[in-house]
Parts: sequence; structure tokens; C-alpha cells
Amino acid sequence: MTHSLDFRSDNTSGAAPEVMAALAAANHGTAAAYGEDDWTIELDAAFSMLFDADCRVFPVATGTAANSLALSCLTPGFGAVYCHVESHIMVDECNAPEFFTGGAKLVGLQGVDGKVTPKALEQALSLGWRGVQHHPQPAALSITQATESGTVYAPDEIADLAGICRANGLRLHMDGARFANAVAGLNCSPADLTWRAGVEALSFGATKNGAMAAEAVVFFKPELAESFLYRRKRAGHLFSKARFLSVQLLAMLQDGLWLRLARQANDCARQLAEGLRHLPGVSLPWPVQANEVFAAIPQPMAEAMQRRGAQFHCWDPARSLYRFVCAFDKTADDVAALLKLAKEAR
Amino acid sequence: MTHSLDFRSDNTSGAAPEVMAALAAANHGTAAAYGEDDWTIELDAAFSMLFDADCRVFPVATGTAANSLALSCLTPGFGAVYCHVESHIMVDECNAPEFFTGGAKLVGLQGVDGKVTPKALEQALSLGWRGVQHHPQPAALSITQATESGTVYAPDEIADLAGICRANGLRLHMDGARFANAVAGLNCSPADLTWRAGVEALSFGATKNGAMAAEAVVFFKPELAESFLYRRKRAGHLFSKARFLSVQLLAMLQDGLWLRLARQANDCARQLAEGLRHLPGVSLPWPVQANEVFAAIPQPMAEAMQRRGAQFHCWDPARSLYRFVCAFDKTADDVAALLKLAKEAR
Amino acid sequence: MTHSLDFRSDNTSGAAPEVMAALAAANHGTAAAYGEDDWTIELDAAFSMLFDADCRVFPVATGTAANSLALSCLTPGFGAVYCHVESHIMVDECNAPEFFTGGAKLVGLQGVDGKVTPKALEQALSLGWRGVQHHPQPAALSITQATESGTVYAPDEIADLAGICRANGLRLHMDGARFANAVAGLNCSPADLTWRAGVEALSFGATKNGAMAAEAVVFFKPELAESFLYRRKRAGHLFSKARFLSVQLLAMLQDGLWLRLARQANDCARQLAEGLRHLPGVSLPWPVQANEVFAAIPQPMAEAMQRRGAQFHCWDPARSLYRFVCAFDKTADDVAALLKLAKEAR
Amino acid sequence: MTHSLDFRSDNTSGAAPEVMAALAAANHGTAAAYGEDDWTIELDAAFSMLFDADCRVFPVATGTAANSLALSCLTPGFGAVYCHVESHIMVDECNAPEFFTGGAKLVGLQGVDGKVTPKALEQALSLGWRGVQHHPQPAALSITQATESGTVYAPDEIADLAGICRANGLRLHMDGARFANAVAGLNCSPADLTWRAGVEALSFGATKNGAMAAEAVVFFKPELAESFLYRRKRAGHLFSKARFLSVQLLAMLQDGLWLRLARQANDCARQLAEGLRHLPGVSLPWPVQANEVFAAIPQPMAEAMQRRGAQFHCWDPARSLYRFVCAFDKTADDVAALLKLAKEAR
Repeated sequence: MTHSLDFRSDNTSGAAPEVMAALAAANHGTAAAYGEDDWTIELDAAFSMLFDADCRVFPVATGTAANSLALSCLTPGFGAVYCHVESHIMVDECNAPEFFTGGAKLVGLQGVDGKVTPKALEQALSLGWRGVQHHPQPAALSITQATESGTVYAPDEIADLAGICRANGLRLHMDGARFANAVAGLNCSPADLTWRAGVEALSFGATKNGAMAAEAVVFFKPELAESFLYRRKRAGHLFSKARFLSVQLLAMLQDGLWLRLARQANDCARQLAEGLRHLPGVSLPWPVQANEVFAAIPQPMAEAMQRRGAQFHCWDPARSLYRFVCAFDKTADDVAALLKLAKEAR
Repeated sequence: MTHSLDFRSDNTSGAAPEVMAALAAANHGTAAAYGEDDWTIELDAAFSMLFDADCRVFPVATGTAANSLALSCLTPGFGAVYCHVESHIMVDECNAPEFFTGGAKLVGLQGVDGKVTPKALEQALSLGWRGVQHHPQPAALSITQATESGTVYAPDEIADLAGICRANGLRLHMDGARFANAVAGLNCSPADLTWRAGVEALSFGATKNGAMAAEAVVFFKPELAESFLYRRKRAGHLFSKARFLSVQLLAMLQDGLWLRLARQANDCARQLAEGLRHLPGVSLPWPVQANEVFAAIPQPMAEAMQRRGAQFHCWDPARSLYRFVCAFDKTADDVAALLKLAKEAR
Repeated sequence: MTHSLDFRSDNTSGAAPEVMAALAAANHGTAAAYGEDDWTIELDAAFSMLFDADCRVFPVATGTAANSLALSCLTPGFGAVYCHVESHIMVDECNAPEFFTGGAKLVGLQGVDGKVTPKALEQALSLGWRGVQHHPQPAALSITQATESGTVYAPDEIADLAGICRANGLRLHMDGARFANAVAGLNCSPADLTWRAGVEALSFGATKNGAMAAEAVVFFKPELAESFLYRRKRAGHLFSKARFLSVQLLAMLQDGLWLRLARQANDCARQLAEGLRHLPGVSLPWPVQANEVFAAIPQPMAEAMQRRGAQFHCWDPARSLYRFVCAFDKTADDVAALLKLAKEAR
Repeated sequence: MTHSLDFRSDNTSGAAPEVMAALAAANHGTAAAYGEDDWTIELDAAFSMLFDADCRVFPVATGTAANSLALSCLTPGFGAVYCHVESHIMVDECNAPEFFTGGAKLVGLQGVDGKVTPKALEQALSLGWRGVQHHPQPAALSITQATESGTVYAPDEIADLAGICRANGLRLHMDGARFANAVAGLNCSPADLTWRAGVEALSFGATKNGAMAAEAVVFFKPELAESFLYRRKRAGHLFSKARFLSVQLLAMLQDGLWLRLARQANDCARQLAEGLRHLPGVSLPWPVQANEVFAAIPQPMAEAMQRRGAQFHCWDPARSLYRFVCAFDKTADDVAALLKLAKEAR
């Protein structure tokens, strides 16, 4: 088998063998449709165990659906949702949050290392919109874990933001498209990184981490989920053969597969970062804390790598910044092959 | 192996072995994400061949998404979409069409045998709404093929409705959640049943017919599809690992699998209808033209069947009307087993 | 002064002199903008006195805004709003209710004399949508008082419907575009016709009854109004110089002007009905209980009247049904002139 | 008569006598409802004359309605509307643009003196969103004339922005809530400031400038207005007695009243700026080019002024920045009285 030099995205990989096996295993006999099957019903208990707390859990197929449906439970159409100015919900979901929430405004906050800072949030809240009919009503903060810059929020960083949210009547949502990588990177418990720190709704990503197409919307406060069933159906995100979503999630939780895969991806990223960091002319703007490596690379070198088969995206041409994503199935050998190529490309 | 007595729905069955095999086969190596993979790109050509016409084709995972996204390309928010008063988009999608279209009004039309009649459509259009600012603007007709009553529109019935649509500036959409069953039932070509008869956009269902979760939105007029990409993403229906949607559809088209499965389901329904029809006290309100059988059955008899393991839904308690759906994987033996039980239940 | 033969609509008349005087009187000095002026603040108390109950009152400029904003407080986007199949919100507001509610479905109910019947409502509710994720969730009933057929609901008729609403978790909204005519016609108290009978939100119309452009959205349960301020602003219905809306409403309430005008209009309608009823070939399909008269008139006779200067709309060509509206400023002489013309036109 | 020391807003003033007279004059006889009266029909011609170009003109009652309805004709729900980060549509309309457009994203641009700069617009457009399904699709630029900082765009500044718009497929909208003040301040023609410079749709404000409640949405490209009638009705902004909106606008255009009032307001603002500028400790951050004066004033001095009866808003406590608005009916004497008070307050 040859090495894969495809570092474009988590999404260019397929599904983990365990996930495929679970899909095949579930394909026997008939089962109640629309989420009334045994697998789907098991989700609440499985995630409640994982998070050491009572959860309400809903499977959907895409991260955009997970984020937008979650947010639609947290804000009215006249609300404001605060988020990082470059977050996925802000720039990469084609106005899905606005669509699902009935027109809520996403307010972009500046950050450090891809993370919303308490100061930026407080400044935005200091405008005095609450209760004034002319202004969008502050409704929620959404943070991304791991961030779009490959960094992670530590539990106390989340708790700081959550404190501001509580003091200002904001709900706290976490876009966890790479939640597994964050947990693996921080080596802390899922609970510590979510509800114990103040997170109220989580988009628990599995697709990037080895599922075929499955995400879980997890509510740590059941009352926030009251309208979810109707919102999901209304958005066309209720699967008739829902078992095929649910078993993907169960397979990920089984024997800690989700963390094992995330750790492997993170290890690859760390190995890649170390290798790149020491190449002349290369620098890394942000700490590598999950499965993504952002590196400023001389353009000729990057293009030489690409000519020789490496695949990765240019993130910011102005800074000659490139992104390398280590998917769940990347191996140390893949990374070594890429680094070899990088060294030769200088 | 025992017989399956589960006639609740097409959706209680799993996926056809060919679909599972295609999913497994596609799970090798990396592929461009978000629909830029080779399988997804192949869809336009594959469906254009099937329909003998240039098509623009978009895979999504649910029928509600297919219908609502298609309709959102056919009507503005101030538009009116005509449909059968008991159609799926009217009563079974939790206002998804209204959501995706930004508030268009679904106008329910009475029908015969579950089919919209030209007369009902013309009466609705005779109200003179077009061009009058107070009224919803007539925008589209959506018909279901096969219908919610298990009947089918013949090509000339569609052409009649299409003629009214053309004369009144209405687009014509077909909800083909059971399109395969209709084609199989009528034994005509997909083209004859769609664009040649005047259909402009089709929700081509595969899930009920043996896919895991896959539907194709097919536009016979490319200009109607211009905004589709953005609408799909905005609704969270763009899959990152899109290949896993597309290969399901390709597998269904491969060697006519879609028709083979539909024919088997229809055969079972016909067999079941013949068997039920001759039982004392049982009557069938509508012709059985696809894979669904509706039968008025004395309630004690129906309940006796259910007690002995048969699974099927009560459709209308007032008329003691029950629905039996023959999924793609039902067999003649399954039907025989059900009929045996029915005879004993009298 | 010549007689007015314009019976097209309540809206073809201008504003009552008292309203114009109030506008002029309010045009002195500066006042806080956006509804923080003294006149607007007075509205809650003025209407609370009128209705003998604590009310939250919001002025807007159009009936469509009043209805749609009120309904948007009563239903989520995945809700169902029941109403008469020919009601204004159903067919004459270009999908405004759908727009404001984020896509709720209006379910049209058949009626008698333009009034929703308890039986029709109960049948619709018997479909079992509540709590089932596939279906729109029953949220509200909206009735029109006086109806689009010129009839009125008696207090006990409203109470009957309200009882069904309560038993089924529906909110009860009244579109009172012609509320004044209903109160005048029934000669009962505003309270008896609203909250005492179970109405929770009322669109209190003033424009048709002599205002320039002013309607009051009245909530009898303050908790239903919590989001109103934001919804109104978001819809562009908050007036900067709000005093000019509010003084119209105050002028209408002053010394019972609203009832005086409505009584005059109703008297004219009754006089007109009596006159028409006895003409050969003329029949009235519905009782005349407010300020509108619907009459089946031989088409040649109607056209002869129109040729000679009478203005009124054809309501239903198929039945040769015509509508005559007596605006707030119609007089007995106007009606007499019209009747004279009708007699000559036979 | 005493002097008015109320400089809070243009909206705290009432209506100009000429407007009140026009309303009274229009209140005779019946007129076709819903905009089919002669006054409303005259609007197209009157504005076409004013702008020296064929216009399609629609009266509405509020600026938020004008802006949001105009924008809804210029962008789909998956679009991006660029605007100044502190513009009225961005922060002062409670998500109305998002609501009316079905969820378009407003992208805030930094500016100089309250004006969007070509550089900021080009940077935003350089992100490469066009044609990429993940991103909001660039649809329109909206600029405010005069700006929220009391400055104006010169015709060539607009033309520069319009050139970028054309090159990037953006529509150009102007929020002219204070358009009259801008025309008066620049002493140029309405045409030069709009369509000749590239503006395609204008919210022509009259309310702040002396109307009771009237704004005109002016389209310089008729094809952009095709859906306006339905969008207006659907939003509850079609007045039944529309004459009362239209005559306000006609009165403003009559004999140049709109410019006369705006010039007076601007003169007052200039006088006030000159007076304040020379007071110790006072500075003006932006040029005064319309009817608003922003001044950094020592807080004790500002509060002393307010204690003695002056009314004006604090704009930014952090900078001790205050706003003084000269409404259409402010006089030189009013300003002199305020300045006297300011001098004494030091």
C-alpha cells in the first residue's frame, strides 16, 4: 500500500472500518422508522454515560445541520449569536444559521489563536442591546472546539466565557465538529469540556472523525430541546431509516473508538508540525493542539510539494499560509512521507 | 429464515445488498469532499442517460429535503404551490415546504383516487390571484407519483395537468418518493412519465426503494437549478463525504436495480390485494397500482392479525381503513404468510 | 353635496374628522420617538378601561401587520393555525402570516355563514397531529369578527370555539378588522366578545372604521406579548413618530366614537339589506349583522346600477353575488340614493 | 413661543404644516384603496421628474420597511449584503434586513468618517466567495446617505464604490433616510447622487425631514422592482388608505419643500457645529455635512446642559461623544439658545 499524501481535509477520507461494520450489522430485519428504532433510542443513554450527565441526543447527517438546528433552539429570529469572526457558522455555511433561526444575526468577534476572547465578548455586549427594541437581542455564544485554527479552548477558558454568558443571559453552544480532537488534545473528560464548563448545547462531530455522515446534537439542558423534533423534521433532517445514522454514532462510542481515532489524527498533526517547524523558511502561526497544522511556507516550496503529489489547501495567499489536515486514518508513515517530500522541496 | 410480517412502511426495511456493497466499495482512498468526487460528478450523466435528456442532478439524504429544496427553486415566498390536500408535502413534512420556500402557501386540492384532478386545479386557478398583490401568486403544482393512495398518474393525466400549468405560468414538480414503483406499475419510460409529459423538477426517491438514505433532485430545465447549490448548503444538506450519497444512487441505476426492486414490491402488493379483496368483509377503496395496499377490514379481524404478529398501520379509523406497504425486499412468501394469517383472523 | 354611491370598501373612505383633528392636535412640540411618547404610553390604560381588563396594546398601521404580528406571537414556524378557508389571513394577505410566523401552516376550515364551526375545528384536530414530529403542531385558531361574510360570532359561539382551543392547547386570536361593527351589531361589551369568551389576542381594527391608518394589537395575556416589541421593529412596523398612530386610536376611543361610527355603518347596511331584499330577483345569502351586505343580483341589473354610478364589487361571478360595504361615513341618504338606483335598474 | 432645546432626534419633531395640510386636503370623498388612487399613481411621474429618470416608486411608512423591502429585491437569502459596520441596517433595525431577505448575511465593513471605503469593500470581496457553495453569495452594497456620522458621500465617492459593485456583480442600494440633507449639503442634483453615480435602489426618506410617516422606495431599474408589490403586501406595508402616504410624499416634493426643510436643518447643524467647535474642551470628530453634529464634550459640561433643559443623546460614553440632531423645524434661534446654554455650562 502506498502512502496517502492527501492532507486536504478530514472529509476526503472515507469511513472507519468499524463504522462500516456497524452499518452492515444494522442492515438486518425491519426496524421502526423515523428514529423509533432501538439503536436511536439507545443514543440518549450512550451519550449520557459518555458525558456523565443526562443528555438529550439527536442524530443528524451534517455539521451544518447540527449547528444550525442547535442554534435555532437557542435564539429567536430577532436575536444575536456571537461567534468568532472566522468561524465555520459565520463564513462557511452559506447563511444556514440565519436560515434556521429565522434571521438571527451572527456577530463576529475577534479572537486570539482562533479563539474568542472574554474581552471581545464583553465589548460586544457592552453596546447595551438587551431590552432595546431597535437592536438584535443577545441570545447565544457559539464557540468552536477545536477551533478553525487548530487550537483548543481549555476548560477554564470555556468557563470564563460561560460566566460572561450567564451574566448576560446568553446560551452557550459549542460547535464540536472536531470535539474528539479537542478532548484527545487536552486529555480531559468530555464533561469537563462541556457542561461542567457551562456548555449547554453541543454539536458532537463524528463525520470528520471517521463516520460516514453522522453528527449528534447534544443538549445538556433538556428544556432547550423541546422543539428540536419539529425543527429537525421541518428542515428535512429526520432520516426515515434513522438506524443508519445512529449506529454510526454508537460505533464511534464503542470501546472509545472516537478517542482512539482522534488521538491518532492528533499524533500525526503533532509529528507533522514538529517536522515542518524545523524546516528553513517555515513557521507555524498557531499552536498545534488538534489535528490541523497551519504553516507559512515559501510559496515555491509549497508548490513543489504539490507538484510531487502532496495535497493540501492554501489558507491565506497573502501570508503564504497553508493548511494540512490529518484525518482519522492518517498514519505516521503518511506524515513521514509528506515531510520527506517537504524537505526535498526546499 | 422466517417470513417478515412487517408491512408498516417502505422505511422499516434496511438497504439492498447492492447498495451496501457500493458503499463498501466507495470506502477506499481519499476523494474530493462536498460533491467534487468522481461518483457525484457522474450523476448528471447517469440520470441524463436514464431520462434520455440533459438533467442537472443533486443528491440529498431525505425525501423532505428533496421536495422542499426543489420547491424552493420553483416558487417565491409569496407564491402558492398547489398539491393534493392529503399529499406528503401538505401534511407529513411539518411545514418543511413553507420553511424552505420562505413562507409559500400550499393550497390543498381535492382529488380522485389520491390524484389531483384537472378540474380541481382549474377551479383553484379561477380565483384570479395572478398579478393581484393581495393574493399568493400561483407558482407551482406538485403531484405525487405514485400517490399517497397507492395509485399512479398515467402519462396523459400528467400531460393534462401540465397543460394547465403551462397556460397559467405554473411550474410542475413531481414528488417521486415512489417514482420507481410508478414506472414499474405503468411499464413506461422514465422520460414519458416526467419531462415528456411536462414535469420540470423531480424528487427521485431511492430510500424507500432500497437505498440507505439517498434521493436525487432532478431538474429537466437547468435554469431552474441555478440556486440549488446554495440552497442545499444553506439547509445543511450538502454532505462532506458526498460520495456516500452518490454511490447509493449509482448502485440503484446500475443494471436497472431500481426497477427490479420496484417490480418485486409492486408484484407483492398486487398479490396481497388479490388475496385481501376476496376475503369476506374486506374491500379496497383504490386501485392498487404501486407497492401500497389500502384495505377496509373489519376492525376485529385487523386486530386479530396484529395480535398474531402482522404489522401494518391504521390509516383511517373512521373507515376501518388499513395500509399495507410492500417494501423493496418483500417476497411472495411474506405476502402468502400475511394472507394466511388474514384468512385465519376472520 | 351629492350622495356617495361608492360602496366598494370601508377603505375607499378617508378618515373621520375627529381623527384628523387629533392628528393636528398632536402635531405640537417635540415628543419622544418610537413609542415612548405620552399618547402611546396611554394606550395600555385606555384599552384596559375599554376591555375592563389589563391589556398590553401595540399600535400598528395596517390590519395585515396586526394579524401577522399577533399570530407570530402565538405559533412557532412548525405550527398550524386554523382559520376559515376564505378568511382574510388565508387568501388576502399574500402569505403574510406565513412570512411573519416563519412558515406556519394555515389550515382552512369550512364554515357556515362565514363562521368557523366547532365541528369543523374538531374534525381538523382529530387528525392527531399534536406531538407527532411529522405534522404541523396545532397552535392557534384565528376567527374574524365580523366575518368576511358580514356576519358575527355571538359570545357563546366564541366560547364554544374557545373551549375546544383550551382542550387542545390552541391559542385563540380574533381578527377584528371590523370588531367595532361586531360590537355594535351584537350590542354587547367588548369584554364579552373577547377575553371573557376566551380570546387571547385581538387585532382591533380602526382604519376601516374611520382612522387614517391605525390598528391596535391587544393582548389579554401579557405573557403572550413578550416578544412583540422586537417582532414589530424587525418587521418595520415601529413608527418613529409613533404618536401619530396612537392619537388615532385614542381619538376613536374618545367618547365612544368608534362605536358611534360603527353603529352608523351598521344601520346603513341594515337599511340597504332591507331595501335590496324586497327587490324581485334579489336574495341575500347571509344575515346582515355588521356593515357589509352581500346580495345575489341579476347581472344585468347590477351592471345597470354600475353604469349609473354605483360602485360595488362583484364577489362571486358564478353566483352573481355582489358586495356592498357601508363605510363609517355612509349616510341614510346615501343608501336611499343607491336603493333608488337599484329599483330603477331592474 | 419658547425655543426648543430638543436635539435628540429628527423623529422627536412632528410633521411640517404643508404635510398636515396635504393630509387634510386629501381627506375628501372616496378614493380607490390599496394604492390605486390618483395620488399614489402620480408618484412615479413625480419622482421620475425629480430624478430626471424613469423610476418605479413605492410609498411605505417607515425607514426600516423601505430599507428591508428594497434589500429583499436585491439579494437572495443565501446572499451577502455589505454595509458599514455601524450602519442603521446593521445595528438599529433588530434584524429586519435578515427577516425580509430570508436570512441574508449583513457583512460589516470598516469605514472612514462613517463612510464605507473602496478598500474595505475590495478586501471583503477578495475572500473569493462568489460561486463557492459554502459561502454567502455577494449580492449588494448598501450605503447610507447622509451617514450615521453626519457625513456625506460625494458623487465620485459613490461612483468609485459603484464601479467595484459592477465589477463584482453587486447591486447598489442607498439608505437615504437623510437623503434630503445629503442633497442639500452637497448642493448637487438628486440624479447625480443616485443613478448617475450607480445607485440602483434608494430608500428616499421623508419622515425625518418633515413627513408624518412616509418613505419612498425608488428603483432606478424597473426590473428590480418586479416582486415589490407582493413583498410589500406580504410584510403588511401596503396601506389600505394609501393616499395618506402618497400625499405626504407629494407635499414634500411640491415647490421643493423637501430641500427647503433639509437646508434649514443643515444650516442649523452648521451653526451649532461652529459654535461648539470653539468652546474649550470640545472637539468634533467628523465633518458636519448634513443635519447632525457629533461632539466630544466634557461630561460635566454635557450633563450641566442637560440639567438646564437641553436634550441630546450620549453616543459613545467611552469617548464622551454626544449627538445633536437638527430636525427640519429647528431654527437659528433654537441653536443660539442651545449654544448660550453650552457656554454657560462650561
